[in-house]
Amino acid sequence: MNILMFSGDYDKALAALILANTAKELGVNVSMFFAFWGLFLVRDPAKLSADDKTAFEKIFGLMTPKGPEELPLSRMNMAGLGKQMLLEMMNDDETPTLTDFLNGARKKGVTFFGCKLSVEVMGFKEDELLPEVQIITAKEYLKDALESDMQLFI
Amino acid sequence: MNILMFSGDYDKALAALILANTAKELGVNVSMFFAFWGLFLVRDPAKLSADDKTAFEKIFGLMTPKGPEELPLSRMNMAGLGKQMLLEMMNDDETPTLTDFLNGARKKGVTFFGCKLSVEVMGFKEDELLPEVQIITAKEYLKDALESDMQLFI
Amino acid sequence: MNILMFSGDYDKALAALILANTAKELGVNVSMFFAFWGLFLVRDPAKLSADDKTAFEKIFGLMTPKGPEELPLSRMNMAGLGKQMLLEMMNDDETPTLTDFLNGARKKGVTFFGCKLSVEVMGFKEDELLPEVQIITAKEYLKDALESDMQLFI
Repeated sequence: MNILMFSGDYDKALAALILANTAKELGVNVSMFFAFWGLFLVRDPAKLSADDKTAFEKIFGLMTPKGPEELPLSRMNMAGLGKQMLLEMMNDDETPTLTDFLNGARKKGVTFFGCKLSVEVMGFKEDELLPEVQIITAKEYLKDALESDMQLFI
Repeated sequence: MNILMFSGDYDKALAALILANTAKELGVNVSMFFAFWGLFLVRDPAKLSADDKTAFEKIFGLMTPKGPEELPLSRMNMAGLGKQMLLEMMNDDETPTLTDFLNGARKKGVTFFGCKLSVEVMGFKEDELLPEVQIITAKEYLKDALESDMQLFI
Repeated sequence: MNILMFSGDYDKALAALILANTAKELGVNVSMFFAFWGLFLVRDPAKLSADDKTAFEKIFGLMTPKGPEELPLSRMNMAGLGKQMLLEMMNDDETPTLTDFLNGARKKGVTFFGCKLSVEVMGFKEDELLPEVQIITAKEYLKDALESDMQLFI
């Protein structure tokens, strides 16, 4: 299974990672290609840097979500109120958090790719991302995706 | 064809159901897996209940769209003005409504699955959903999707 | 590869066209089916018309993006500020614009289809769209998509 993770929304990231974890449990190979806003999910909050960035890249880096738990909902976000409500409801059901699912995917060996063009445009440095993330081009992504049984754009 | 219906937007639901109906007309098997906001589409407006729900689940149930016609647009919604305009334009062209396409899919035998985890987190009860909806896990969804010729995340 | 281009967002259009151009460079056939808001991307800004339209269709035609560069971002648009920032960052990296990628796809022979129902509902005339766009039904789209190795809904 191949997931192009374009979105930087908490709920869509949750859906993608639940699918990735579940596919691994079924013994299926999983690649996730993080592009555009999807890269926010694999920023390591402990490793942010402003070195060697343009003014725009610095502002952009500061204004945008730093790691999984800062992602907003795709809808009903209402300045965070809707997300808080969702988190409470997930907690009531003892559902793992987004970070749990992300760490699950890392442990289970889901392959993490970062989009070279997006990384360059957004001014992220490779060492600001999780260590599992390999930076590849759109061409390399497509070669991988075309050989997969199932591709999703999330 | 397998559609993971994640979104709860009127326009995306319309696109998904037009594809589902059309695929059935071509003799293709169609499964739709309703997860997260997509579940709003298969809530039965006549069967809402507040029994056996936490406070959050009750508020959530009341604040969110109850059935297909209450779904907002994914963009240009403008407090309902854009949607009204779209509905007028659809009506001028004698296009069926979302409810018509939903009922078409039910009659044509599109398989409706509801995501177990989403149903639990959102606090929906199985009998608040359309009777065609079978609740399944992400694992069961993936097994079905991986055998399909075409998978879309909408 | 088959892309159903539903969204009318600048960033998602960029992602779709980068994939389409890259697939062509790999020698892969690419079809793009523009439906709903996706049609905004293939409106020819030089050929807008108000002839033979209802009042709603005229207002809709005027209020909506006319061609690729008027598309908003799917998030962080902030009344255009976020988009301006993204464009500056793309420019700093000498990344081509959306229009460049669109023209690249046209030159490389990506097949452009427009959704008949969407065109009718939105009141667009065939000669308001780019000349490469062939108007087809959802049924014709699905036949094409089902034969493809990879389908994305963007």
